[in-house]
Amino acid sequence: MSVYNVQLKKVVDDSYDIEIGFGLIEKLICDIQNGLVGNIKKFAIITDTNVVNLYADKVYKKLIDLGYTADLFVMEAGEKSKTRQTKEMIEDDMLSKGYRRDCCVLAVGGGVVTDLAGFLAGTYGRGVPFINYATTLLAAADASVGGKTAVDTPLATNLIGLFNQPKKVYLDIAAWSTLPRRQVYSGMAETIKHACLADEGFFEFLEENVDKILENDKDACEYIAKKNCEIKYNVVMKDERESGLREILNLGHTVGRAIETVSDYRLLHGEALSIGMVAEVHLARKLGYMNEKEVARVISLLERAKLPVEIPEYIDREVLVKKLYTDKKVKNGQLRFVVQEGIGRIVEYSDGVFAIPIDEAVAREIIMEM
Amino acid sequence: MSVYNVQLKKVVDDSYDIEIGFGLIEKLICDIQNGLVGNIKKFAIITDTNVVNLYADKVYKKLIDLGYTADLFVMEAGEKSKTRQTKEMIEDDMLSKGYRRDCCVLAVGGGVVTDLAGFLAGTYGRGVPFINYATTLLAAADASVGGKTAVDTPLATNLIGLFNQPKKVYLDIAAWSTLPRRQVYSGMAETIKHACLADEGFFEFLEENVDKILENDKDACEYIAKKNCEIKYNVVMKDERESGLREILNLGHTVGRAIETVSDYRLLHGEALSIGMVAEVHLARKLGYMNEKEVARVISLLERAKLPVEIPEYIDREVLVKKLYTDKKVKNGQLRFVVQEGIGRIVEYSDGVFAIPIDEAVAREIIMEM
Repeated sequence: MSVYNVQLKKVVDDSYDIEIGFGLIEKLICDIQNGLVGNIKKFAIITDTNVVNLYADKVYKKLIDLGYTADLFVMEAGEKSKTRQTKEMIEDDMLSKGYRRDCCVLAVGGGVVTDLAGFLAGTYGRGVPFINYATTLLAAADASVGGKTAVDTPLATNLIGLFNQPKKVYLDIAAWSTLPRRQVYSGMAETIKHACLADEGFFEFLEENVDKILENDKDACEYIAKKNCEIKYNVVMKDERESGLREILNLGHTVGRAIETVSDYRLLHGEALSIGMVAEVHLARKLGYMNEKEVARVISLLERAKLPVEIPEYIDREVLVKKLYTDKKVKNGQLRFVVQEGIGRIVEYSDGVFAIPIDEAVAREIIMEM
Repeated sequence: MSVYNVQLKKVVDDSYDIEIGFGLIEKLICDIQNGLVGNIKKFAIITDTNVVNLYADKVYKKLIDLGYTADLFVMEAGEKSKTRQTKEMIEDDMLSKGYRRDCCVLAVGGGVVTDLAGFLAGTYGRGVPFINYATTLLAAADASVGGKTAVDTPLATNLIGLFNQPKKVYLDIAAWSTLPRRQVYSGMAETIKHACLADEGFFEFLEENVDKILENDKDACEYIAKKNCEIKYNVVMKDERESGLREILNLGHTVGRAIETVSDYRLLHGEALSIGMVAEVHLARKLGYMNEKEVARVISLLERAKLPVEIPEYIDREVLVKKLYTDKKVKNGQLRFVVQEGIGRIVEYSDGVFAIPIDEAVAREIIMEM
C-alpha cells in the first residue's frame, strides 16, 4: 500500500468588470476587438425568443461584419426553458456547427439566459469563456455578481449548476424599457431583497424612488444597478462558495423558490420572491426580530413595486410546505430560513451561520395565514 | 456609463492523495470516519452493473452499519451509459431521495463510472465533494490524476464535462483480477501511452513485464499504477487546464477517440486508443520523428498486451476521417495531432505548443493504409 500525493495549490484570478450604462453593444464589440477573450474568433450567442430580435441579432450582425464566426442559439423565453434538455439541445447544436474549445459563449438576455448559458459554457469542452450581456433588471441584480449558474429540474429550481465566473458583464439599462411591465416589476424583487438584507439607506432610497425606477428614470436605474452589484459583491467576496455568509442572499428564497416551482412557473421569479419575502418578514416578526411597522414597510414597498404579496388561491398550501424541503439550505432534513432583523440586517444564528432551523409547524402556520 | 470591478483573486488548494494497494475498502471507510469529507453523513454511491455486487455493495453495507445514510445508484456498465441522460437520471433519483448539498458522491468502478460521477458531483447543487474508488487499470491510468470528468454526446466522447478534483482516489489493484480479460488488456493502452510520451525506461520495464502485469502480478501492477500517476501528474501539474503541455496526454487519442465513436463503442476505449497509437507512430515515422525500429517496438508491445493494432474491417475509413474533426484539439477547422519523438518524448511544435497541424490528406493516407 502506498500513497501518492497530488499537490494542486494555486492562485486563481477570476476578477472581472461589470459595465453599467445605456446601450452597450458598441462597447461589447469594442472590448472583444481589444482582446477581452484573447484571440478567440468564434462566438456562440445564446439568447431567447424575446431578446433575439431586440439585441442578440444586432450583436450577431456586428460580429459577422467584423469577420468573426458567430451563430445564434435561441431558446424559448421563460423559466420553463431553463432545463437540462435545453442545455443539451444547444450543446448538440453547437457541436454540430463545429464549436470546440476555441469559442466563447455570449449570453444576451435576462437571468434565465445568463444562468443557462453560464452553466453551459462551464461544461462545454470542460469550460470555455463566457460573457453576460444582461438585458433585465433581474439579471442585473441576480446574475451579474456571484458566478452562480444553473438549470432547473422537475423537482425544483437551480439544483444543477456551477459556480462559474464570466469574463465580463454588461448591464444595459436601456434594455429595461423594452421589457413587458410585469418583468420590470418582477426585477424589483431582488433589489428590494438586497436593501432588506444589507442597507437601510438603500431601502429608504427605494421608498422614495420606486415610481421613478418603474418609469425607467436613467439616474435612478443606474444607481440601483450599481448598488445591487455593490451589496451582492460585498457578500460574495467574503464567501464565494456559500458556506456561510452568502446564504443571506437567500432571504425570501426558501418560500420563494418553492412557490415558483409549485406555481409551475405561472409566477415569475421576482413575483415568487416577493411572496417569499412577505412570508419571511412574518417569520421574523414571529421570532421577535422585526416589529409591525418594519413588516408593513417591506410589504408596502413590494406592493408599490406592483409585486404580489399574497399566496395565490391556486397554490395548494400543503404541497408548498412539502416543497420547502427541496431547498438547498436543508440540512439533515431540517428546514432552515434566512431571517431579517429590522431593515438592512440579517440575524446571525451562530458564528458565521445565517440560516436558522425552523420547525415545519412554524413554517406551515405562516403559509396557512397568507 | 460606469464600471464596477469584481475582484476574485484567491488561493485554491485542490490537493489530494491517491492510495494504491490491494483491497482498500477498509481504508476508505476508515478515512471517511476520520473526516476525509468533513462531517458529511450522506453518501451517494455511483457504480455500474458490473461492480455493484463485487465492491459497491460492500461499501454501501459498511456505511449503513456505521450509521451513515447511503444509497446505491447503479448505471448500466459500458461506455454507452456515459451520457447526459444517465447523469440526469441519477440526479433526479438523488434529488428525490433527498440528497442536497450536504452529501458526498462516492464513485466505485472503472473510468466510465468515475468520469460520470465526478462530473455529476461537480454540478450537483453547484458542486459537492467526491471520492474515486477505481477498480480498473484504465481508471488507474486515466481517471486518477488530472481532474478530468465528462460524459459523451452522440457526436463524440468527453465533449461535455468539467475539471473537478476528487477528495481522494483509491486504486484497488486486487480489483483488476476480477475484470474480464478484454478489460485488462484495454487498460494497458493508457499505460503504454504514458511510457511512449514520457519515459523510455518505463517503456523498457513494460517490454520486460507485460506478461506478469497481464497475470496481475502484485509488485508489477503496483509499480505501473504508481508510475502512471507520476507521469500524468508531472504533466498535469504544469498545465492543469490543457492550454499547452497537457495536450501531450492526447497522444493516440485523435484517431483513438474518433474510432471509438465510429465503432459505436464495439471497441473499448483502450482498444481504440491502441489503434490510434499505431496510426500516430506511422505519422511520426512519416514526419521523420521515429525510425522503423521504434515504430515496430511500439506496435509489438501493444500486440503483446493483446491489443488490436489494425483498423477493423467494419470501420468506414471515410467516416473515420470526417470524425477526426470532432477532436477537441481542432483549431479553426485544422486537424492537430500529438506526435511522438523516438520513445519517451513528444515533439514540441513551437514554444509550449505540442499539437501539430496535419493536413487531412496526410491523415487519410495513414488511415487508408491501416
